[in-house]
Amino acid sequence: MRALVFEHGRLRLEKRYPEPLPAEGEALIRVVQAGICNTDVEIVRGYLGFEGVVGHEFEGVVVEICGDEQARERFAGRRVVGEINAACYRADCAYCQQGMASHCPRRTTLGIGGRDGAFADFLTLPMQNLHLVPDEVSDEEAVFVEPLAANFEMLEQVHVRPTDRVVVLGDGKMGQLAAQVLALNGCEVTMLGRHEEKLALARRHGVLTERVDGEDENALLRGGERVDLVVECTGSEAGLAMALRLARPRGTVILKSTVAARSNLHLAPIVIDEIRVQGSRCGPFAPALRALNQRRVDVRSLISDRYTLDEALAAFERAVQPGVLKVLVRI
Amino acid sequence: MRALVFEHGRLRLEKRYPEPLPAEGEALIRVVQAGICNTDVEIVRGYLGFEGVVGHEFEGVVVEICGDEQARERFAGRRVVGEINAACYRADCAYCQQGMASHCPRRTTLGIGGRDGAFADFLTLPMQNLHLVPDEVSDEEAVFVEPLAANFEMLEQVHVRPTDRVVVLGDGKMGQLAAQVLALNGCEVTMLGRHEEKLALARRHGVLTERVDGEDENALLRGGERVDLVVECTGSEAGLAMALRLARPRGTVILKSTVAARSNLHLAPIVIDEIRVQGSRCGPFAPALRALNQRRVDVRSLISDRYTLDEALAAFERAVQPGVLKVLVRI
Repeated sequence: MRALVFEHGRLRLEKRYPEPLPAEGEALIRVVQAGICNTDVEIVRGYLGFEGVVGHEFEGVVVEICGDEQARERFAGRRVVGEINAACYRADCAYCQQGMASHCPRRTTLGIGGRDGAFADFLTLPMQNLHLVPDEVSDEEAVFVEPLAANFEMLEQVHVRPTDRVVVLGDGKMGQLAAQVLALNGCEVTMLGRHEEKLALARRHGVLTERVDGEDENALLRGGERVDLVVECTGSEAGLAMALRLARPRGTVILKSTVAARSNLHLAPIVIDEIRVQGSRCGPFAPALRALNQRRVDVRSLISDRYTLDEALAAFERAVQPGVLKVLVRI
Repeated sequence: MRALVFEHGRLRLEKRYPEPLPAEGEALIRVVQAGICNTDVEIVRGYLGFEGVVGHEFEGVVVEICGDEQARERFAGRRVVGEINAACYRADCAYCQQGMASHCPRRTTLGIGGRDGAFADFLTLPMQNLHLVPDEVSDEEAVFVEPLAANFEMLEQVHVRPTDRVVVLGDGKMGQLAAQVLALNGCEVTMLGRHEEKLALARRHGVLTERVDGEDENALLRGGERVDLVVECTGSEAGLAMALRLARPRGTVILKSTVAARSNLHLAPIVIDEIRVQGSRCGPFAPALRALNQRRVDVRSLISDRYTLDEALAAFERAVQPGVLKVLVRI
């Protein structure tokens, strides 16, 4: 099959990569659409140590099932999206048994760790990971379920009140989804970003915006008032420092992006202001699918460009250009 | 009056320092006992930018009240301890009106910011800050109410379950109190520290201990299992890095000590493991007083040495010597 492979520090399109074989309890999925995430970009820069087929945001069709009749009936031939952490689901695994499969220490992660990913004709995932895509949700929209779920994870972790004031730092893909998800319960969300056209997009979704210039360390909200919740979606060290300045005493800062570099940060403000810094990664698919199905979030406007798998190298070049949000790859 | 003053980078005992005048709503308190905290040590090293009379852990007797008859009746001549943040308590202050006086942006803080402290014959504090000391609690024990309250703050912020596994990093004053407070609800608490005699003290309070050698970066719990809650009481950057390695996925790290230096930390583990990093500072006095009164915590064994105010400079020298826990200063 065709596959986009990162190996020996190089990304290449392989025409005759071996097709994956579904293990017991797994499904073989023909990939239909895949999306490029910042994590993919970090991988192909060699930051995360992964080698193999990249990609973890996808939608596809189940073509083979290695499991019982019930699973076959439920999934065969259906459009699915899949949670990316393939856990061990063993009876002696405390994480799997306590509903924390995404933290299973034996897990593999699609296109990120120990398991080939989605920029290929086929992939495999455990059946537990799959979610049917409703007819009302298009192939292109379904690709957003994974990153959207990662943003719903924030609502699993932190009680966001409708009266809270929320700031999202960063106007990229993650920031756009975070702002839309956080605005769902009626709270006031302000996005701080550098790109007028991306801020304009956020405003279309009812999000207030504030333009931040360059490296302006003093850039703050207009009112100067600190807010209840700040979500760090810039992935930069300066972003986290600013988040700690913007959060009110006893407020919360959610870290959504993995900062590859080491931080050189004053941590005393966390203690003095009793800030909660909450790391946040993968999230629940079901609420993301419901939100898409019920048109409560808009992901189509985040699509900057479309490529095919044969053009995948060009797609990755496009994904890192300034002003670009989501780049999709049709398989 | 006599007062221990830090000014122009120098700590000195002043014999004729002006007595403080209680403002409306404040009490004048004759200090009886005061304790040296690590924050005091940082102040006299010039780290916190404070100038004035140092000290914030104290017990004393109310000698004058600038307030109504009711307050006079309640406090006159009584033994008290005092919360150290003197808030504005104004009707338009969101923090004061929402029970967050310790975060009031207009606050002064006893011996730490904008208000002379406790190593002096007299100090003043708002009446709202005062708590009567029960007869069963001695002067020396009462000095521990402030740091003990700071440790009860953890239980205000985080739901610690009786089945949780808890690690306290650091065997100093703060670590000892943290371990005792966290063990109250029946959970298993393990202290990691470098000093055998301090670990032995913790064991007397039902705390498990593990000796950590020097800069051993690989020092972990014997079982190698990560735990639900880690409390960072070392104040070192290495401590925080170790806390992030010891906390389980979706676990909590509480930062109890203000790290003066900048950190040079990998923050990605916070996101990948979805750790909650919770800063924690001052806490509620009432539970600390109840715990002392009911003999649920033991603070007397933490007293390493006793000095008088006239010997206060020597007391500060003693407080930074290895192996020393709490140094008290009788006024």
